[in-house]
Amino acid sequence: MDRKELASAIARVSRLEGQFLLRSGAQSTTYFDKYRFESDPTLLREITAHLAPLLPPGLDALAGLELGGVPLATALSIYTGIPALFVRKRAKDYGTCQLAEGGTVAGRRLVIIEDVVTSGGQVAESTHELRALGAHVADALCVIDRRAGGPEALSAIGVQLQCLFTGSELG
Amino acid sequence: MDRKELASAIARVSRLEGQFLLRSGAQSTTYFDKYRFESDPTLLREITAHLAPLLPPGLDALAGLELGGVPLATALSIYTGIPALFVRKRAKDYGTCQLAEGGTVAGRRLVIIEDVVTSGGQVAESTHELRALGAHVADALCVIDRRAGGPEALSAIGVQLQCLFTGSELG
Repeated sequence: MDRKELASAIARVSRLEGQFLLRSGAQSTTYFDKYRFESDPTLLREITAHLAPLLPPGLDALAGLELGGVPLATALSIYTGIPALFVRKRAKDYGTCQLAEGGTVAGRRLVIIEDVVTSGGQVAESTHELRALGAHVADALCVIDRRAGGPEALSAIGVQLQCLFTGSELG
Repeated sequence: MDRKELASAIARVSRLEGQFLLRSGAQSTTYFDKYRFESDPTLLREITAHLAPLLPPGLDALAGLELGGVPLATALSIYTGIPALFVRKRAKDYGTCQLAEGGTVAGRRLVIIEDVVTSGGQVAESTHELRALGAHVADALCVIDRRAGGPEALSAIGVQLQCLFTGSELG
């Protein structure tokens, strides 16, 4: 599957039609369900093969952000042999568990793995939290960048965001 | 890697030594970190190859329980071609998202995928929640069954639990 075929397949699988109530309270007749392209093994294999060449060299681990980044980090870990980490998003949940599950963070060079980036706020927050634990974070990789300020916001904190597709390519 | 070698490798990677404060408040010099065997791609590949033959026939999807079941369901999905579902554990988080992400649940035959089962309480709860949405759930599969009443508790609600290892096999 080439890049263009993959974009079409992701759009076909993830764009649902029906009556949807959006978070804003508005109604919509279409909804983009980002989990659909991760739960489909054929698509996930293809996405993984296209993402892997975008990984920077010299990584110690692939830090997948809960929940959507976890299947991607897992698939990339199996594909590349680079260890994974599973990063929680909510500080309130850390009581009996760790920010990053699966291994140590201090002194390791991580790339953050995310499904969809909009403003980049969640990637920035996780970057700060992982750096506070001693991780080196200079890169992030996502499947879809909606081009809503993510690359600029992350660049401002020293993180280079790479994406497989921009939102408009799935249009 | 045969079954015995895999058990040794899981124990070697996941059993940490140090000073640990357990949830009970007690101190321990060892701790079993169940995420370690999922973040290691070599081990995850081996675990997947050993789990796949234990899947029942006729499944529609692999329902991985957040968080530890998600990497396993992803790896099994890639390996077998059966679609995955990512199942949330906390009702309080459902406000803006779904119990099961990645596809529809109603009318589909699911197997629950979990990393470690102790009493079986979480698998039972997720079974009830998925059945309330119309799913058929008669099977669960885990890497480690601690033999603390899990199989009996699940059998009582019509779920057959299969495991790759019992806790005692990991020494």
